[in-house]
Amino acid sequence: MRVLSGIQPSGSLHLGNYLGMMKPMLSYMDRAELFVFIVNFHALTSVAEPDKLARGTLEAAADFLALGLDPNRCVFWVQSDVPEVTELAWILTCITPMGLLERCHSYKDKIAKGISPNHGLFAYPVLMAADILLYQSNLVPVGKDQKQHIEVTRDIALKFNYTYGDTFVIPEGEISDDIATIPGVDGQKMSKSYGNTIEIFLDEKELRKKVMSITTDSTPVDQPKNPETCNLFQIYRHFAPRSRVEEVHRLYIEGGAAYGTLKKELVGILWDYFKDSREKRAELLADETYIRKVLAMGAEKARNIGEKTLELVRQRVGTRY
Amino acid sequence: MRVLSGIQPSGSLHLGNYLGMMKPMLSYMDRAELFVFIVNFHALTSVAEPDKLARGTLEAAADFLALGLDPNRCVFWVQSDVPEVTELAWILTCITPMGLLERCHSYKDKIAKGISPNHGLFAYPVLMAADILLYQSNLVPVGKDQKQHIEVTRDIALKFNYTYGDTFVIPEGEISDDIATIPGVDGQKMSKSYGNTIEIFLDEKELRKKVMSITTDSTPVDQPKNPETCNLFQIYRHFAPRSRVEEVHRLYIEGGAAYGTLKKELVGILWDYFKDSREKRAELLADETYIRKVLAMGAEKARNIGEKTLELVRQRVGTRY
Repeated sequence: MRVLSGIQPSGSLHLGNYLGMMKPMLSYMDRAELFVFIVNFHALTSVAEPDKLARGTLEAAADFLALGLDPNRCVFWVQSDVPEVTELAWILTCITPMGLLERCHSYKDKIAKGISPNHGLFAYPVLMAADILLYQSNLVPVGKDQKQHIEVTRDIALKFNYTYGDTFVIPEGEISDDIATIPGVDGQKMSKSYGNTIEIFLDEKELRKKVMSITTDSTPVDQPKNPETCNLFQIYRHFAPRSRVEEVHRLYIEGGAAYGTLKKELVGILWDYFKDSREKRAELLADETYIRKVLAMGAEKARNIGEKTLELVRQRVGTRY
Repeated sequence: MRVLSGIQPSGSLHLGNYLGMMKPMLSYMDRAELFVFIVNFHALTSVAEPDKLARGTLEAAADFLALGLDPNRCVFWVQSDVPEVTELAWILTCITPMGLLERCHSYKDKIAKGISPNHGLFAYPVLMAADILLYQSNLVPVGKDQKQHIEVTRDIALKFNYTYGDTFVIPEGEISDDIATIPGVDGQKMSKSYGNTIEIFLDEKELRKKVMSITTDSTPVDQPKNPETCNLFQIYRHFAPRSRVEEVHRLYIEGGAAYGTLKKELVGILWDYFKDSREKRAELLADETYIRKVLAMGAEKARNIGEKTLELVRQRVGTRY
């Protein structure tokens, strides 16, 4: 089974990304053929700052390697290093009905938010389909907001196969609800767009500031509290050792949980939790040679597979003459 | 000065194409750096028949070589052999406002005609912009129907240069009115979509049938006729020797022009006019090796130039990290 996952070259992963995307992704390394790529072509639809994009790409690679992505147990590359995907995107674009794209929520939402739409935002799902289909992916883990794009990919693949003969694997989406269940410091879903994130790679002072700002209620220490509705506990429970989580859970139920003390404890827990990754990340970014070598190797592996699909597609549609 | 011209892989050029596009194009071989390419990526927006597309591509190459395109005095290639153009198209798509594409007549016209729109038809002008800008073209001779697409290309290039720094030559369109002035057999503009064309490479029987079907009025032979409004004369004058055209013109004005006789004469004139090309075309298609060699050579030349532009673009937008 081939599992494909695209990551944004944003350069500032937060705990929500880690739990919702990273951990499940890493778990696939041993269970499937994992394909992970940094989607810098897609990022162009919203980033017009070249230095930020280039730097973000390299840092995203460092982040993922630091957090445990093993380039020998997956295919890990930068989208633009296999530009063949844009050729496939053009070919797919010619069998994609306009209506399919016009119905996409993510585009409509962006317009509703007053974002001046460029054609890249509109065409986004076609490039995403090309990413998925070029590598004949079986499974694509995505957040709920990307569910419709997987359906678009399936529609395009089915239409292509019907028109030109069996060519593409029809992928399945794996819709993860995890991201939504981790609250940000204000209690809403943790999301960069809400400005309520706790980043993985903060320095200790910044980390403390973020954790201490987690919104809690004013129930006195000795009173019972509901751990299920407490933002602090909902973050805490993912990172503290299991036995300690059980202990703290009891304190919530029976009374005795002190928010301030728990927050200070959480700072230390998070600091230690990501200690090795933090050090590895600093090492990687101190000498980029290794990162670039890994990405070049990944691009070559990805290209070898993508080229096979693309050559078949060219013959199917008649651009090989 | 670099002049760029795209030709459809339709495989059935008619006299209107010849006079409106081929002759002016050939005249640029000695006056400019001429870039001519067969637009098979664009053709995908309307052709879903692989064999027809592949065969049409090869035949279009044969047609143009047979009609005098000299691959040593121009760069002549098939669009899909330099797929780098699709990478540029994606990058440009991310700075192309939706409104710019929504305002394109050619897309709106197709919808109005009841053609079920695919996204390729909508995105067509962006790929065309990529074609033009990848090769840093100065001049693009086009028919009136493509005038707006040149404006779109200029808008995109100006926006890119403004956003990312000077990168692209801003091309000029050269709008040719010639195509419109050659009537088809029914007197309307000669156009495939009107079904009124006389193809260049017909066999003699088909050619005779087409020419004999040219609509003329019922003025008796000895009466004066207006050569300016006579479809027959408007075709005849482009292919007969100049002295004979003057003679026939006089017959029209003074009386004595016999439509039937002139039509028979025109059959012979057209047959002889394209005799050498017809023979060369048959030779080329009998052994495709030469065509393929020429196109491969052209693709290499085009790629060398396109790669330079694209590498600069990658650095400008930050997909080189």
